[in-house]
Amino acid sequence: MTYVFAFDYQHDVPPMNLKHLLGGKGANLAEMTSVLALPVPHGFTISTDACRAYMEGGWPAGLSDEVAAHLQRLEATMGKGLGDPADPLLVSVRSGAKFSMPGMMDTVLNLGLNDDSVQGLAKQTDERFAYDSYRRFIQMYGRIVQGIPGEEFDHLFEQAKVQAGAESDAEIPPAILQELIDAYKEVVLKHMGEPFPQAPADQLRGAIEAVFKSWNGARAVAYRVRERIPHDLGTAVNVQSMVFGNRDDNSGTGVGFTRNPATGENRSYGDFLVNAQGEDVVAGIRNTLNLDEMRRVFPAVYDELLGIFDRLERHYRDMCDTEFTIEQGKLWMLQTRVGKRTGVAALRMAVEMTADPKMELTHGEAVQRITGDHLDQVLHPQFATADVTVIATGLAASPGAAVGKAYFTADDAAAAAARGERVILVRSETSPEDVHGMIVAQGILTARGGLVSHAAVVARGWGKPAVVGAESVRISGATFTAGGVTVSEGDVIAIDGTTGRVVLGDVALSLGERPAEFDAILSWADEIRAGTMTVRANADTGADAAVARSFGAEGIGLCRTEHMFLGERLPIVRRMILADTPEEETAALEELRVAQRADFSEVLEAMDGLPVTVRLLDPPLHEFLPRIEELAVKAATGTLSDEEKAHYRAAQMWHEQNPMLGTRGVRLGVVKPGLYAMQVRALMEAASDRVAAGGHPVVEIMIPLTVTREELGLARQWVEQAVGDAATGIDVTIGTMIETPRAAIRADQIAEEADFFSFGTNDLTQMTFGFSRDDVEGRLMHLYLEQGLLKRNPFETIDPGAVGELVHEAVKRGRATKPGLKVGVCGEHGGDPESITLFHAAGLDYVSCSPFRVPIARLAAAQAILASG
Amino acid sequence: MTYVFAFDYQHDVPPMNLKHLLGGKGANLAEMTSVLALPVPHGFTISTDACRAYMEGGWPAGLSDEVAAHLQRLEATMGKGLGDPADPLLVSVRSGAKFSMPGMMDTVLNLGLNDDSVQGLAKQTDERFAYDSYRRFIQMYGRIVQGIPGEEFDHLFEQAKVQAGAESDAEIPPAILQELIDAYKEVVLKHMGEPFPQAPADQLRGAIEAVFKSWNGARAVAYRVRERIPHDLGTAVNVQSMVFGNRDDNSGTGVGFTRNPATGENRSYGDFLVNAQGEDVVAGIRNTLNLDEMRRVFPAVYDELLGIFDRLERHYRDMCDTEFTIEQGKLWMLQTRVGKRTGVAALRMAVEMTADPKMELTHGEAVQRITGDHLDQVLHPQFATADVTVIATGLAASPGAAVGKAYFTADDAAAAAARGERVILVRSETSPEDVHGMIVAQGILTARGGLVSHAAVVARGWGKPAVVGAESVRISGATFTAGGVTVSEGDVIAIDGTTGRVVLGDVALSLGERPAEFDAILSWADEIRAGTMTVRANADTGADAAVARSFGAEGIGLCRTEHMFLGERLPIVRRMILADTPEEETAALEELRVAQRADFSEVLEAMDGLPVTVRLLDPPLHEFLPRIEELAVKAATGTLSDEEKAHYRAAQMWHEQNPMLGTRGVRLGVVKPGLYAMQVRALMEAASDRVAAGGHPVVEIMIPLTVTREELGLARQWVEQAVGDAATGIDVTIGTMIETPRAAIRADQIAEEADFFSFGTNDLTQMTFGFSRDDVEGRLMHLYLEQGLLKRNPFETIDPGAVGELVHEAVKRGRATKPGLKVGVCGEHGGDPESITLFHAAGLDYVSCSPFRVPIARLAAAQAILASG
Repeated sequence: MTYVFAFDYQHDVPPMNLKHLLGGKGANLAEMTSVLALPVPHGFTISTDACRAYMEGGWPAGLSDEVAAHLQRLEATMGKGLGDPADPLLVSVRSGAKFSMPGMMDTVLNLGLNDDSVQGLAKQTDERFAYDSYRRFIQMYGRIVQGIPGEEFDHLFEQAKVQAGAESDAEIPPAILQELIDAYKEVVLKHMGEPFPQAPADQLRGAIEAVFKSWNGARAVAYRVRERIPHDLGTAVNVQSMVFGNRDDNSGTGVGFTRNPATGENRSYGDFLVNAQGEDVVAGIRNTLNLDEMRRVFPAVYDELLGIFDRLERHYRDMCDTEFTIEQGKLWMLQTRVGKRTGVAALRMAVEMTADPKMELTHGEAVQRITGDHLDQVLHPQFATADVTVIATGLAASPGAAVGKAYFTADDAAAAAARGERVILVRSETSPEDVHGMIVAQGILTARGGLVSHAAVVARGWGKPAVVGAESVRISGATFTAGGVTVSEGDVIAIDGTTGRVVLGDVALSLGERPAEFDAILSWADEIRAGTMTVRANADTGADAAVARSFGAEGIGLCRTEHMFLGERLPIVRRMILADTPEEETAALEELRVAQRADFSEVLEAMDGLPVTVRLLDPPLHEFLPRIEELAVKAATGTLSDEEKAHYRAAQMWHEQNPMLGTRGVRLGVVKPGLYAMQVRALMEAASDRVAAGGHPVVEIMIPLTVTREELGLARQWVEQAVGDAATGIDVTIGTMIETPRAAIRADQIAEEADFFSFGTNDLTQMTFGFSRDDVEGRLMHLYLEQGLLKRNPFETIDPGAVGELVHEAVKRGRATKPGLKVGVCGEHGGDPESITLFHAAGLDYVSCSPFRVPIARLAAAQAILASG
Repeated sequence: MTYVFAFDYQHDVPPMNLKHLLGGKGANLAEMTSVLALPVPHGFTISTDACRAYMEGGWPAGLSDEVAAHLQRLEATMGKGLGDPADPLLVSVRSGAKFSMPGMMDTVLNLGLNDDSVQGLAKQTDERFAYDSYRRFIQMYGRIVQGIPGEEFDHLFEQAKVQAGAESDAEIPPAILQELIDAYKEVVLKHMGEPFPQAPADQLRGAIEAVFKSWNGARAVAYRVRERIPHDLGTAVNVQSMVFGNRDDNSGTGVGFTRNPATGENRSYGDFLVNAQGEDVVAGIRNTLNLDEMRRVFPAVYDELLGIFDRLERHYRDMCDTEFTIEQGKLWMLQTRVGKRTGVAALRMAVEMTADPKMELTHGEAVQRITGDHLDQVLHPQFATADVTVIATGLAASPGAAVGKAYFTADDAAAAAARGERVILVRSETSPEDVHGMIVAQGILTARGGLVSHAAVVARGWGKPAVVGAESVRISGATFTAGGVTVSEGDVIAIDGTTGRVVLGDVALSLGERPAEFDAILSWADEIRAGTMTVRANADTGADAAVARSFGAEGIGLCRTEHMFLGERLPIVRRMILADTPEEETAALEELRVAQRADFSEVLEAMDGLPVTVRLLDPPLHEFLPRIEELAVKAATGTLSDEEKAHYRAAQMWHEQNPMLGTRGVRLGVVKPGLYAMQVRALMEAASDRVAAGGHPVVEIMIPLTVTREELGLARQWVEQAVGDAATGIDVTIGTMIETPRAAIRADQIAEEADFFSFGTNDLTQMTFGFSRDDVEGRLMHLYLEQGLLKRNPFETIDPGAVGELVHEAVKRGRATKPGLKVGVCGEHGGDPESITLFHAAGLDYVSCSPFRVPIARLAAAQAILASG
């Protein structure tokens, strides 16, 4: 096996296609060298194969020989020798994984310097430059490769500066630099128990191993978990001959973008420093010049650079991000890559590049350039600055940022909002009784609960920022503590529901705007997916439905009726639950019917002409009663009112050990047979009202939590009976959710009674894994992801291993019984791009997601179709 | 389609194989008529096809014509006409389903009588007999077919008797009978709005429809649910010409068994009445004679009957149960069937019939004659009488009957037992803190909880009778009320854990005994399954393991380690959970290690030389803490001790919404990495102790609740590390439970890390259906079974539709990765005969069940093997 490839190696395919082997950085260096013939300092890449072999069984056999051979070739090409006391070759060593990844070992510069070769460098340049380069190397190597705390060097450096009376680093004279080098070497000896390595081959092996090891560093692992990068890819290592932008005033270094990565403007953009090394640009100590100013300092090099930018854009057909160095007037390209960009920039670039003769992106290519995160950035407000004081981090439950005064009860929040204050509602967790406080809040913060907790689900439905399950937030009365800070009622905090950050104090927000390119991209996406996969929204109210429609929803895939049972309806629902006689129960159901009729009417009006899938009541009944713990405490203290005594009896009766697996869904219908008929009557009356008003209601009725054909058959009878009784003449279709493993496996039988299927992949995931999302996501998920026990959080991206197989199988079996059966998905996964790809492959007709994710789903559906060819 | 078959119809196969079509009664009548040529009154059977067609779409087209044609043939054969005013033919109409089924329409006799034909009958017999037959017919038809309350006729009959001054029914003179008939007809007219049907064809159609409808009567449905009979079989209807055992003193009627159904003795047995109809024998108004006495009254008929018994036994190769009538000296066989028998009788008959030259049953056939219920009856005490006062019925959680004084706390029960009293522990539900009271109790009764509640699981493990979830039992302090009765502490009650009955007062028990035939049958079963499926037990202690071994267990398939964490160990476990530092946690784990070492040693000793599968800790940690509700109440009332405050904090931290889907199983190991290593160290030390003592421990270590290969790989590393550290030189195998749908689906990957699989079908069923057994079994299951939404309780018999498919698939996929992978099942289904059949078909190597079900599993495994050929 070959582990090492020179930048000019002639691969069988374009190096850009070998990122898995060469890493992103290595692939781009090879591309620039071997394909574009740009001025790149020579070097070679140690492949990810070597890293994987190292992780499995230590330093790979044969790797040392390969590295030595490539070094020899490099020395021959450059006409210099590593460690040569006359004219030494120096190299940089950089990590480079398939995906760009902070947290790994970054860069070691000037490798090859030792007590001898520093003399050769001095001869070739000057003493101050040579000794300064050597002390920089020891400092960098000691810190990065050998893990010695940076302060130990910094401290000595400051002393030396004082001793030399120097204002800037460059003023320290060679003699003092030499003493500093000796002091640095002492630090290394003390920490490592052995002297600083003098043999360049040893230095190089140490640096390579450090890169390999940094792949499994804590920050790198955490980054991969967050960015969903597999842990078994490994990183490549790039060894490149050094050029010196800090050699003299005819030298310099910079970073450049071929277009503006913040705005998308088609104009080169970048920072530049005369007589400096790359780290000086990044460190931000000296004020950088922009590229326009470079034109003044180095006009010829500037023109050459812009020519290279043009070639890069033509070649990559995208905006590129580069690092370059000028050594004594000669331009060297140190690296390039397709550049990261903001959402606004991504949209502008993609659209403009379709009209740019240099690129001529197709609409499909433009659509593929945009990610869900890009759209999210455009749709939701963000912190306008990175300079914030994070006091806690919770789960990113609902994207967007919000600022306001902290209030700790829904009533206080509502009162403050009524006074005109901007409010963040802070609760341990929320319940339906907090809804009036949630409505008025800018954002919601909870200390407990997972991504399907009440707070999270409600907030996402409304597109309101929320951070939930911030476990370090400890609430006590009208204050909370977190990160050593106490926040009292009325103090200003900010939350970022896109990242889960909780911030102390006011933060400026950049408000989302929808640029024209947003609509262009989505209209192209719609053209691509026309006739294949449609996108619906989950919406429970007329207002939500209207928002969804404005985002391009083509129907409602999930109208939950339980939200209609809350607020002022709660007393009626409780009367139904507490009913002692069938008459009392019927009376309560009648009251609910009247209320639901109005709800349904609004939803049908907002979605007029488009299908609306109404799911009959799903949650366990005890969710509509006060919490049993609170009632138990009151009972123990003798403070239950008569009404509460009845609630307590009912709560005990309906209490369940595992409500997720208890009396909910169609099982409620079996236990309370009048319930579903009432809901269907209300719905049909609403539909009839709409027809009378000249509307075109399209009604689909969905039965939740089916496990057997017989169960669905019974529910279907109830629905058909109620539809028939209503005698509206309006066609309705009757389907079921597929959200238990049994329903998926026996989809062949269930299809006999169903006009359509809608996957409830959240419940399906919970049951397939035996994971209660509420319980597992806070406590276990991060451990599972960090240790690689799970590749992805299966509640964010559908698990292809088992849940995905159930989806595929259920579609196949359902359509074997009923060819052309309409199948969709409603729930969180319906808005996740990767999951949408799987749903498209499984043959689903539609996805349904929260209104604010509809644009992302439209985009992802188009991308899935493009990817499947 | 042909719906009607005469008894003498020549079917292509023996009628006994057509029970699905002819029903049991019809098949046996055809067998006796067409194969054995016994004296059976002529008649015909309307098949179950007709019943199913009726249930689908009403009276089947063509059925009337077929019935009319068969009636004509019957009239020709008998030389009499239905409704003939001179010499009428009378028929009986009886239901007859594939399986014998109380609750359906039983019998209508004397059909064909009307105002005219009664005159004909009078001419052929006498007036009193004829009018009495007619009034019986109207009464029976009115009650059974027309649904008129029986009291209305009974009342008139009593009046007539008084009017006639008659002591017995037979003394009522014809004139008063005629008046009575007119009064009966008035009752019918009043209730039905039309006169009593006079046309025999109308009478017959009414009776046939009544049989069809009775299939879906409430009692029949409930019976089918209990006996697990599908609701879609339908019943047949048998129409048979009447013979009269009440014609004169040369007539009679009786029931006879070819052997004694109670003891199994090889001697005919039965009851007989002179001058009577069948209903008189059953009604028990007159004292019956036994068959020996019949020999004296009707010597020739007696000899003929015994000759028929002999032919029946030769033909059916089993004990038969018959009904017969003698009309004016001629013997008629009205029906026969293979007779029901007690467990003792079944064992004795099966063994004796292998040596009976008349039958020569093979050992395999003998084994197939025995059911699990037969063995259960022999193993557990039963109520010795049916005359008991049932005050409540709960779930039959652990078989056997028990009698004792009711006590309401574990402490009171223990104190009473110490005084020498026999105790029934009565609790709302039990928890680990009640164990000392459960140990001393004869039996356990709880008002709440399902078949996997703590009380049920513990009781079954010990073979101790238990009734759980008796919802009508309302406990208040040291009394409970149920069925309108109040039971106070110290009152004697009895429970029957085989049927779920709770009985007031003392009840005599027939103690189970193990007759010699028990061991014979099981040794034959063992020969049959030798080399295929082995039977293990679930046992957690040395004592349980010893019991299991005495019942023939060939190893332990599930040794739960959580029970070792209770009792006096609970404080240590709590210290581990509450540990603030790794040191405290390690110290607690060390203490537990010492304790567990002794536990494991006992288990390994009891099972020396046989495999013992130890499951590492499985339940959620909060199960080891006091109940959060109780702590919350104390917190609210300010009565928490310092220790309880710590418990409360921990209980809140470990509290879960759905503990079934939370932090349990291998997830505990991920959260508390030292836990599993401690358990493995204790186990290896125990194994080492056993080797030192000359024993042969066979150790298998099992990881619970796996969902991914990576998870099992990590757990395997911990186990291998701890096994290696122990350096005992003892081989262990490491496997996993397959109890999540994901594990079953990805068994191919999981097998890479597993030496064996053991299905946890209880959890697998919970997750596949989304049924929390604790929550669903009490509230929903009966509704689902009664309404046919489920055919079986999937927690009793494995659901072949989905859970069974997952088992099959997981075995296939696991062995595709690792051919010869050992696969078993542990848990309730492992002791259920039908489930064992599925496990055998799926290729499982062993089943494991509670010690007391081991004999049943041995039997069922043999039967599964025999059935699969």
